[in-house]
Amino acid sequence: MIINKPLIKLCSLALLFSFTLTLPAGAIDNKPLLGFTRDGAIRQREMETRFDSLLKKENLREWMKRLAARPHHLGSAYGKENAEFIASQFRSWGYETEIEQFDVLFPTPKTRLLEMTAPEKFTARLAEPALKEDSTSNQASEQLPIYNAYSIDGDVTAQLVYVNYGVPKDYDALAERGIDVKGKIVIARYGGSWRGIKPKVAAEHGAVGCLIYSDPRDDGYFQGDVYPKGAWRNENGAQRGSVADMPLFPGDPLTPGIGATKDAKRLALKDAPTLTKIPVMPISYADALPLLRSLAGPMAPEDWRGALPISYHLGPGPAIVHLKLEFDWKTVPCYNVIAKIRGSERPDEWIIRGNHHDAWVNGADDPISGLVAEMEEARAIGELMKSGWKPKRTIVYAAWDGEEPGLLGSTEWVEAHADLLKRNAAVYINSDTNGRGFLGVGGSHTLEKFINEVGRDVTDPQTKVSVLERIRALRIVRGSTDDKREARERADLRISALGSGSDYSPFIQHLGIASLNIGYGGEDGGGSYHSVYDSFDHYTRFGDPNFDYGIALAQTGGRIVLRLANADVLPLVFGNFADAVERYVREVAKLTDDMREETRQKNRQINERSLWIIADPTEVYVAPKAEAPVPHLNFAPLQNSLARLQESARSFDGVMNEAAASGRALPLEAQKSLDGILIQTERAMTREQGLPRRSWYKHQIYAPGFYTGYGVKTLPGVREAIEQRNWKEASEQVNIIAETIDRLTAEIDRATKIARQSPRN
Amino acid sequence: MIINKPLIKLCSLALLFSFTLTLPAGAIDNKPLLGFTRDGAIRQREMETRFDSLLKKENLREWMKRLAARPHHLGSAYGKENAEFIASQFRSWGYETEIEQFDVLFPTPKTRLLEMTAPEKFTARLAEPALKEDSTSNQASEQLPIYNAYSIDGDVTAQLVYVNYGVPKDYDALAERGIDVKGKIVIARYGGSWRGIKPKVAAEHGAVGCLIYSDPRDDGYFQGDVYPKGAWRNENGAQRGSVADMPLFPGDPLTPGIGATKDAKRLALKDAPTLTKIPVMPISYADALPLLRSLAGPMAPEDWRGALPISYHLGPGPAIVHLKLEFDWKTVPCYNVIAKIRGSERPDEWIIRGNHHDAWVNGADDPISGLVAEMEEARAIGELMKSGWKPKRTIVYAAWDGEEPGLLGSTEWVEAHADLLKRNAAVYINSDTNGRGFLGVGGSHTLEKFINEVGRDVTDPQTKVSVLERIRALRIVRGSTDDKREARERADLRISALGSGSDYSPFIQHLGIASLNIGYGGEDGGGSYHSVYDSFDHYTRFGDPNFDYGIALAQTGGRIVLRLANADVLPLVFGNFADAVERYVREVAKLTDDMREETRQKNRQINERSLWIIADPTEVYVAPKAEAPVPHLNFAPLQNSLARLQESARSFDGVMNEAAASGRALPLEAQKSLDGILIQTERAMTREQGLPRRSWYKHQIYAPGFYTGYGVKTLPGVREAIEQRNWKEASEQVNIIAETIDRLTAEIDRATKIARQSPRN
Repeated sequence: MIINKPLIKLCSLALLFSFTLTLPAGAIDNKPLLGFTRDGAIRQREMETRFDSLLKKENLREWMKRLAARPHHLGSAYGKENAEFIASQFRSWGYETEIEQFDVLFPTPKTRLLEMTAPEKFTARLAEPALKEDSTSNQASEQLPIYNAYSIDGDVTAQLVYVNYGVPKDYDALAERGIDVKGKIVIARYGGSWRGIKPKVAAEHGAVGCLIYSDPRDDGYFQGDVYPKGAWRNENGAQRGSVADMPLFPGDPLTPGIGATKDAKRLALKDAPTLTKIPVMPISYADALPLLRSLAGPMAPEDWRGALPISYHLGPGPAIVHLKLEFDWKTVPCYNVIAKIRGSERPDEWIIRGNHHDAWVNGADDPISGLVAEMEEARAIGELMKSGWKPKRTIVYAAWDGEEPGLLGSTEWVEAHADLLKRNAAVYINSDTNGRGFLGVGGSHTLEKFINEVGRDVTDPQTKVSVLERIRALRIVRGSTDDKREARERADLRISALGSGSDYSPFIQHLGIASLNIGYGGEDGGGSYHSVYDSFDHYTRFGDPNFDYGIALAQTGGRIVLRLANADVLPLVFGNFADAVERYVREVAKLTDDMREETRQKNRQINERSLWIIADPTEVYVAPKAEAPVPHLNFAPLQNSLARLQESARSFDGVMNEAAASGRALPLEAQKSLDGILIQTERAMTREQGLPRRSWYKHQIYAPGFYTGYGVKTLPGVREAIEQRNWKEASEQVNIIAETIDRLTAEIDRATKIARQSPRN
Repeated sequence: MIINKPLIKLCSLALLFSFTLTLPAGAIDNKPLLGFTRDGAIRQREMETRFDSLLKKENLREWMKRLAARPHHLGSAYGKENAEFIASQFRSWGYETEIEQFDVLFPTPKTRLLEMTAPEKFTARLAEPALKEDSTSNQASEQLPIYNAYSIDGDVTAQLVYVNYGVPKDYDALAERGIDVKGKIVIARYGGSWRGIKPKVAAEHGAVGCLIYSDPRDDGYFQGDVYPKGAWRNENGAQRGSVADMPLFPGDPLTPGIGATKDAKRLALKDAPTLTKIPVMPISYADALPLLRSLAGPMAPEDWRGALPISYHLGPGPAIVHLKLEFDWKTVPCYNVIAKIRGSERPDEWIIRGNHHDAWVNGADDPISGLVAEMEEARAIGELMKSGWKPKRTIVYAAWDGEEPGLLGSTEWVEAHADLLKRNAAVYINSDTNGRGFLGVGGSHTLEKFINEVGRDVTDPQTKVSVLERIRALRIVRGSTDDKREARERADLRISALGSGSDYSPFIQHLGIASLNIGYGGEDGGGSYHSVYDSFDHYTRFGDPNFDYGIALAQTGGRIVLRLANADVLPLVFGNFADAVERYVREVAKLTDDMREETRQKNRQINERSLWIIADPTEVYVAPKAEAPVPHLNFAPLQNSLARLQESARSFDGVMNEAAASGRALPLEAQKSLDGILIQTERAMTREQGLPRRSWYKHQIYAPGFYTGYGVKTLPGVREAIEQRNWKEASEQVNIIAETIDRLTAEIDRATKIARQSPRN
């Protein structure tokens, strides 16, 4: 995955799930299933039991050992071998399989130099040494060196400034202390945002270079014993990763919006908008320590200080740093493995399941831990087919290449097949890394109730309660007062909205395909992320030593695929979605109110001179300027659209519940008509023009944050306009989202009409 | 001071003060003054202007250089020289001066050995090296070594366990991880509580020894550059300090409740209840690092981890530690300097002003920075007397000895003269360390309005607004929403209640003498506290280089003394006190409600098994036991007493305001009668039996916390009983405090009657 894994804390996994009584997981088998009749549900669960019995841990271990045996990044020889191996496996399980190739820009380093020239001389090591405890760490000839993909070339020498996480508010704090990064090289620590934000914001403030280091506070000994003694990043470990401006668009930087086929029309390199504006490189904390120790100037604010044994100063200087980077700007083949089972009844409705296969180095955890679970799931479905079972809908299994540099394989595939997918794609289900712990789920809220049902039926391998129940317990113990209450009282546990960071992004955000992202974690030790130490040895000591959670992921993904492929009607529920949107509407209104009060307070303090009065006169202090008052925005269009949506959702869900209660299925034609509308409901949440200044992102409810981080921004058009104090745009976007919701409501009403008027079989 | 200075953060200084318009400090000279007629206030302010003009920074610098020139701890040769020097100065200024001697137990080390015997050999250095940048740091022959006073002798060898701050809840967290300290040596970090709590709680849990170290997170490079580059504690710096069980009683451990005069009846050493139960020693972080690095076992909870470059584990072991301590249990003379000016009109009403003179080593900051301001204040008052001025009331200036080991000088003096003081003492004003920054005030809330008036009239040397205005700005910027609102809207800024940590404790808590504690700070760099580096060199670089805040303290203390000595009627106001008590009553009620809800939630989680379900099965987890539900307590007696107090306070303050508005003074006899009652009002807040299990502490509104720390506990009888879940005692204490408040209310009503019935002059 391309998000910063060590920052996913347990609490962020507490996204899920519904209230259930504490029953052994087996005792709930006769509960109804969304989209099935009562009898159909019983048959479905019998098949799932058979499916479970086919899953074998040994396969996961064997495949991980093989797939992670050598470095297999995009464009590597072993990456191609892996794609071919995966394809051959799918073929052997009965899948119609092909390797679909794209040709994508993928720079790799020719020159990497980082040295400090003053106040003392130091040359950074920029390498992760081989460890005898890690049998693949010595494959230096095949390993990609430590670098950030899509940094531009550069050769800069300048004073250094420490900028914390390097997000916009950090530069406000620097400005208050009279520090300007113009013409300087910044050093930021990993965390607090998607790494690509750091050089982007640094460049906007005039910096000429950017270093990103792993502070031991966030990703090292502060968290736990370091590798090889423990799981955590050691002093020489560094985090590779993409720094392309993915919040603008992911995928090949030269072919935005279209598939990077051999003959596709490409941008000139100099015109590629997602490359960084300044050179950027990641470093270890052993390499960062001499640099940070050589900074003077004011102390960094307390929450900027990490766990290195130094006083964290901001600079600028006296440390002067020389950074030189040159890349080989080559185009490489990108091999997606695509494996299909044609639907017996509705072949033009596709359930797509994906996990990437490329890694930064050996990638046992990222992505092989998720990939081997997906493969075992696919193998078991193949076994079911051999015993005569056929899915109603088409199932597509994908193993993506080039996820790490920027979702290249999935994005190019989605762009290349956009028209077909817009017609046929019902749901996309993604996984990526996986480990011991708690189920985490993000996704479309129309699938919230469905995934709650799935989580209720999968047993946690350690505690033997359902995986849903385990998340519920987490929220009850660790959640806020509201979370606790909801975890006990709300029918379903909430799922999080999807930002970006793995291959679901083009599906949901570019095309509007209802999506889910699933994975276990929270009890697997971190620290190997994007390093040479993300190895079979590391994973089988600290990740999921017995592959129990690999099996749990296969059971979860398998149930999702099998239920979606077999249901009489796609199991979308709109009440949960409307409830989520209601929250988001409340949030953006509260955001505006909070900003108004905060601005009022700040301006008052400026007028009263309180900020100057409390400042220490022996230190530089530049007080912020007063800001224009925050106006009251007209949220009524959004609130009115939401009210209509809630009403329509209630009607649709009610009609479908009645149908389910009747015990009889709808006529096949009505089922197909309903599916046809339901597939399009997520599409109705998109807008062809996309979001302001980033037309690739078409979804109006979910998007990764453009500026303030990489996590999800819900109602992004409105929320980001407010955050940027662009009141005019905020008001325009209120209307646009309201219209979007109205389009969705109309679709739901059409579905309700069909469901209501159809006779029962 | 004996409290842990580095933990006093800026926010805790934001205790004060009243709303005023932003006027230059000089423009408010015609405002009324509590206790004075309008004409009297004008004359008083004229005198204060004269007083200010007499203050000379050069004296502060010269005296600090002299007094901190050599180590001057209790019992030292230079300590005696200092006492004699101070006394000679007071005599030269016209004070009737004596040195009053007590004879107190003061153990100093004969043997100090700390070594690690496994898994590797290490012997702790236990010494602070001389620095060429610090001219007094090389006086090894006179320096007290690094140690904790009133630790018992001991020779123990055991596995080590890390216990964070070593407060009771830390042991709960250890128990949850299956860790028992019985038979172990604990290592705690400084902070989070009064240091004496650490060995006390460790011993209660069965530990056989206790180390206390300064973590660089709280008191070292994490805070800023270390000495001599910056102000903060370097790796060899360690914090001496008392570990006597002062929350039981302060002062000489062998003479509780009575003055330690030559012939006083003394306890046998073995019966002295405030000595520790296990040997305890403070160490530097250089000495702590090898020990902590050698611990295995579970990772410490995240908020337990400090700034050493290691993974903080809990143990026990494999580190095995040998600690050997032997002390010379000698009795030493304790020299209090007592200097008086007899009151011209009411000689039997005493205004007492004190600051200690003993230090742990050279003590430029602690206590000389406060002492030299007090001396300059006294010198200027002497000058005023030479020009013919005389105070109405008696002024007593004190320089206490033996504060550091446990408030010995002040406590023995208070105990020896208890009857006289109960009759005569009107107010005690304390100071201790002082530095650049913000005025901090704690004290009796009957003096809250008075100290607001004083703070309004002192100009901050850096910003030229009043020192009150500067604190107000701090609360407006940094405070909670409630603090912000109050800072703008409430007539007076609140002062904090007094716990313990300096010489006010015997005055207010043992005898019930209205008290104030004043001092500037927050912009003076920390890290020299109780080390050999608390020197003239350190202070004049980082403390208050120009002694501007020394002058501000003299102006503040001088105004307090002069106004209290000269007022027609003592300036006590009861509305502020009633308002503070109302808060405390609300707090204890809320505490009970919060504990009830928390207990309910925790028990529910235990019943639902949520705590087990979320536990990582690969780690030891011992869930807490269910607790009895928290009952609803009857707070009505307290609330009814409070209501009567509020009514009486309103009447008294109203009558006094009318009197002030009339512009005419009360007849002298009425003034004296009122003073007689007002002096006793703080006494009315005490109870001869004292608090449960610690009869020395007689004040029913303020006390230092017995168990949960050293900070203040207001309404201590009730609050601590609730915290300990002793519901029966809590209910009894509600009634006891209600009765106490009723006694006070009766006194106020007597005062009101006199004030109302007296004619105006």
